[in-house]
Amino acid sequence: MSNNPRTLTPAQVRELARHEALPTTAGYADGYVQANLLAVPQEYAFDFLLYAQRNPKPCPIIGVLEAGQLNSELLPGGDIRTDIPGYRVFRDGELVSEPAVVNAEWEEDMVAFLIGCSFTFESALQDNGISLAHIDQGRNVPMYRTSIATTPAGVFSGPMVVSMRPVPANQVADAVRITSRYPSVHGAPVHVGDPAQLGIADLSRPDFGDAVDIPVGHIPVFWACGVTPQAAVMNSRPRLAITHQPGKMLVTDARDLAYQIP
Amino acid sequence: MSNNPRTLTPAQVRELARHEALPTTAGYADGYVQANLLAVPQEYAFDFLLYAQRNPKPCPIIGVLEAGQLNSELLPGGDIRTDIPGYRVFRDGELVSEPAVVNAEWEEDMVAFLIGCSFTFESALQDNGISLAHIDQGRNVPMYRTSIATTPAGVFSGPMVVSMRPVPANQVADAVRITSRYPSVHGAPVHVGDPAQLGIADLSRPDFGDAVDIPVGHIPVFWACGVTPQAAVMNSRPRLAITHQPGKMLVTDARDLAYQIP
Repeated sequence: MSNNPRTLTPAQVRELARHEALPTTAGYADGYVQANLLAVPQEYAFDFLLYAQRNPKPCPIIGVLEAGQLNSELLPGGDIRTDIPGYRVFRDGELVSEPAVVNAEWEEDMVAFLIGCSFTFESALQDNGISLAHIDQGRNVPMYRTSIATTPAGVFSGPMVVSMRPVPANQVADAVRITSRYPSVHGAPVHVGDPAQLGIADLSRPDFGDAVDIPVGHIPVFWACGVTPQAAVMNSRPRLAITHQPGKMLVTDARDLAYQIP
Repeated sequence: MSNNPRTLTPAQVRELARHEALPTTAGYADGYVQANLLAVPQEYAFDFLLYAQRNPKPCPIIGVLEAGQLNSELLPGGDIRTDIPGYRVFRDGELVSEPAVVNAEWEEDMVAFLIGCSFTFESALQDNGISLAHIDQGRNVPMYRTSIATTPAGVFSGPMVVSMRPVPANQVADAVRITSRYPSVHGAPVHVGDPAQLGIADLSRPDFGDAVDIPVGHIPVFWACGVTPQAAVMNSRPRLAITHQPGKMLVTDARDLAYQIP
């Protein structure tokens, strides 16, 4: 097996995740789509799929494992209960544990939603000469709950969560143009430049991930974030929900390029 | 009220549909989105929404009325049980009646899916100088079951249904370009020029709608069709399903332009 995480295959990363405590999947298996996970019992599945359909920017569905299904063409031969480096278990909206595998917690009729992740367009930004402060600073991307309400569906509602990346003022237009080519993995920014309008009081205190230092001459740019479903779970309190830990994603066999439009 | 069907408002068309036997909604309320209907009891709602998510070209969802909901911003103050000129009721996959209203058949927990319709891009084709044979010939667009299988979800599976429009050979590229700007109402054609490859033996015998004469020098062009869910119902036999009658659509308050991408 390669020692360079970038050149591992998705199957190799999932195998690693099954046995080791990877701190993040960022930088692993270059060129492959990484996915957020939200799994709920069947009784909540219609409401959540409708919630995602009504909120496609924060919740772009790239795959669904139906009740009883543990893998698919996105993770051939894999097991959704073990192949992510870390999980979060929510009961009645409260985070109750962060296990390495969820075989014990998984109920037979759970439906697993795999949701696109901005790691896909981060490579495209870097390939186009836009450096990413959180990567340069060795941190997880900062994420914030906003005052923007998502469109409710059934029992699910809650605030939109955004990720923030500082971009040099003369590259903001490029960042918009590049990320709009990935509409099924969050697409163009939802907001540029004024955190107060999103209800974010202090950029140095993110709700998820790590704070980053904003270099001089950089503008904070905000994208819809796949952690939004976790906020909906905390707000809407389904009996049981299982997610990935932020930054520890499912590495899939789908190619980033498959999600790029011309 | 205007005598010209093109200049009626969507609300006026829905009011007409409540009281009169309109033969079609084609040509009514120019510039507004018309929608296919599929309504099923709640027990089938997740499976159908997932089926649509996996088959976005034939089943682009533009709105969902949750259980107990009879109108929405797509039909403000309306009633989904009466505001379409004609309905089809399927029991166990069999067409059992074609009533003008479905107040009696509608069950309290039914979920109604509103699905984009190619009438939206037909205006754009005509505005760009591409004439439409079925309109010139005063007929409903011809639709065919194909040998292309849709991606199954839960209890739903079946063939893709396509609509066919003859296009002059020198305008086929334009027709592709124009319709690809409407990805959420079927988008670009799924096939150009060879019906046999779709398993269509005889263009003069459509499965839905009317046959059209193909003018000399015209190529048959095939688009994914919103009647595909009706084929899935006939194949998958849910206990109850209610649809519109082909060509008699729900005229919504949404603008065609809202579904066009640059």
